Amino acid sequence: MLQGHQTWVFKAEPVIRSSAAVGGPFESKGALAGDFDILHEDVWLGQDSCEKAEKKMLEQACEKAIDKAGMKKEDVQFFLSGDLMNQIISSSFAARTLGVPYLGLFGACSSSMEGLALAALIVNSKAGENTLAAASSHNVAVEKQFRYPSEYGSQKPPTAQWTVTGAGAALLSLNGEGPRVTSATIGRVIDMGLSDPFNMGTAMAPAAVDTIQAHFRDLKREPNYYDLIATGDLGRIGHKIAGDLLDKHGIKIPPAIFTDCGILIYKEDQPVMAGGSGCGCSATVTYGHFLNRMRKGELKRILIVATGALMSPLSYQQKETIPCIAHAVSIEM
Amino acid sequence: MLQGHQTWVFKAEPVIRSSAAVGGPFESKGALAGDFDILHEDVWLGQDSCEKAEKKMLEQACEKAIDKAGMKKEDVQFFLSGDLMNQIISSSFAARTLGVPYLGLFGACSSSMEGLALAALIVNSKAGENTLAAASSHNVAVEKQFRYPSEYGSQKPPTAQWTVTGAGAALLSLNGEGPRVTSATIGRVIDMGLSDPFNMGTAMAPAAVDTIQAHFRDLKREPNYYDLIATGDLGRIGHKIAGDLLDKHGIKIPPAIFTDCGILIYKEDQPVMAGGSGCGCSATVTYGHFLNRMRKGELKRILIVATGALMSPLSYQQKETIPCIAHAVSIEM
Repeated sequence: MLQGHQTWVFKAEPVIRSSAAVGGPFESKGALAGDFDILHEDVWLGQDSCEKAEKKMLEQACEKAIDKAGMKKEDVQFFLSGDLMNQIISSSFAARTLGVPYLGLFGACSSSMEGLALAALIVNSKAGENTLAAASSHNVAVEKQFRYPSEYGSQKPPTAQWTVTGAGAALLSLNGEGPRVTSATIGRVIDMGLSDPFNMGTAMAPAAVDTIQAHFRDLKREPNYYDLIATGDLGRIGHKIAGDLLDKHGIKIPPAIFTDCGILIYKEDQPVMAGGSGCGCSATVTYGHFLNRMRKGELKRILIVATGALMSPLSYQQKETIPCIAHAVSIEM
Repeated sequence: MLQGHQTWVFKAEPVIRSSAAVGGPFESKGALAGDFDILHEDVWLGQDSCEKAEKKMLEQACEKAIDKAGMKKEDVQFFLSGDLMNQIISSSFAARTLGVPYLGLFGACSSSMEGLALAALIVNSKAGENTLAAASSHNVAVEKQFRYPSEYGSQKPPTAQWTVTGAGAALLSLNGEGPRVTSATIGRVIDMGLSDPFNMGTAMAPAAVDTIQAHFRDLKREPNYYDLIATGDLGRIGHKIAGDLLDKHGIKIPPAIFTDCGILIYKEDQPVMAGGSGCGCSATVTYGHFLNRMRKGELKRILIVATGALMSPLSYQQKETIPCIAHAVSIEM
């Protein structure tokens, strides 16, 4: 690999043998409800805490993906997962249930593509066959931890985003049929000095732009190589800013192919401020909606640029700004 | 790779070009003080919070390792790091300073070897050259987050461990001279139903045993292949239990080569209860002490089995037991 490059090219093109998406009640009323494998009417999933509900959802996404591939847990060689909870308990407790060799990740909302990139690296280098990548978030759990318990009913500015209650999983193998993971661009941390936790999209936009630039530079590729380029969860405000910044840097992505998972997931009339967010946003939209469209033949080549805000409530209280990152993964039919 | 195997064999044998260890005042009075590159008399490192002190320490370990390899930040292609803080802020904020493509990890105290394993995979598969793996912990920051602020002076049982204030980093390349990373065994989550956060060593011991068993099974290797087998931070109580469990499973590791980073790092007369712990424990003891011994020719083949307790204060409050994991990495001269 060339010095200075940050993109992995997967020559063996690991196949996404199966994928699954699980969502909550708000997602079941959303624009992409038809692309979820399981939708829950009860945001608690019958559990006695929202954290346990998130874990349950993540387990269901993993089990569904394994089941759809016609496999059993024992067939999965490695499990990579990340989420937003302190000490990523959703992932680690789901890993306990799965009982599969496990690598815990944290890249905030970019964890989805961090996991897919590393899973593809493992399969591509023959370090493992049947590798499962997953990510999740839960609206109530995240609001309680990062902002206020949702029961407080605190108001939010229009720049805020709605954390997706959802989990997504993808099972990768060297052999089989399905969309193929062809490359991954690992992002750098970018911090433009913003510190408002109610305006994550704006903070994350420059990180998305940095990674998209690196992707096209490393691969000597033009945006029109793709049928669709989707940022993870910038929302309406952040996505607009990312588009403007890319334009300034001379990267012209046609508006028709440039979208954002956080904009797509909910309907216009849902009160989600600037759009959806959370690890579960890019995970469910990619592993549900986009892969379904690829399997139907509607999309041939897509680039998912999952963005993450790497702050904690404590770093915010200590007046730190928000370091952001984005990892991009290309998937081709 | 064979189905059911959880061990990666690195045929290209990535070289640890350089490594560095940074410690605090308590470590400077410890048994391995001579193996640290930087020791701080001030546990705050002149920062206004213990979290910022941890970040600073991690940055110093990374910078020192890069410097010792005769490189610059720009020469590092990927940075992998993990720590115990919520949302691994120490790692992510250090990644902001480094400005290198970054993969955030969380495996609690196993993060050190999780990072080394993945860095070796990246270098071995030529997905990157000059890859930096690091991990850190800070006594004051960890006590405040997981138990009580140390200023409270709360008493602890003899099974408790002392979180190491330290950071370690290792720089891997395909070429160069130095100890080589030859294999890595990725652990499964093991939970024997223990829930006492003041007795982590006992909770983690079965995970260490499970990974050690898998390592020898996958590689068809006997313990005497190694000059030294070190668990991460089981401490005196957990290490004894691990030895007994291995014995029961028919794996006889000679006591002379079986040790624990948490036992080695402090002196007998330091009030550390059962021993040291934290990501910084296995990271500093491995990247400082053990690698120094290898470079001096005292050790030829070592196996580091870093253990992690994947709980959070919240999972404990919700009466969950402690899921544990261990990742093992072999290093040979």
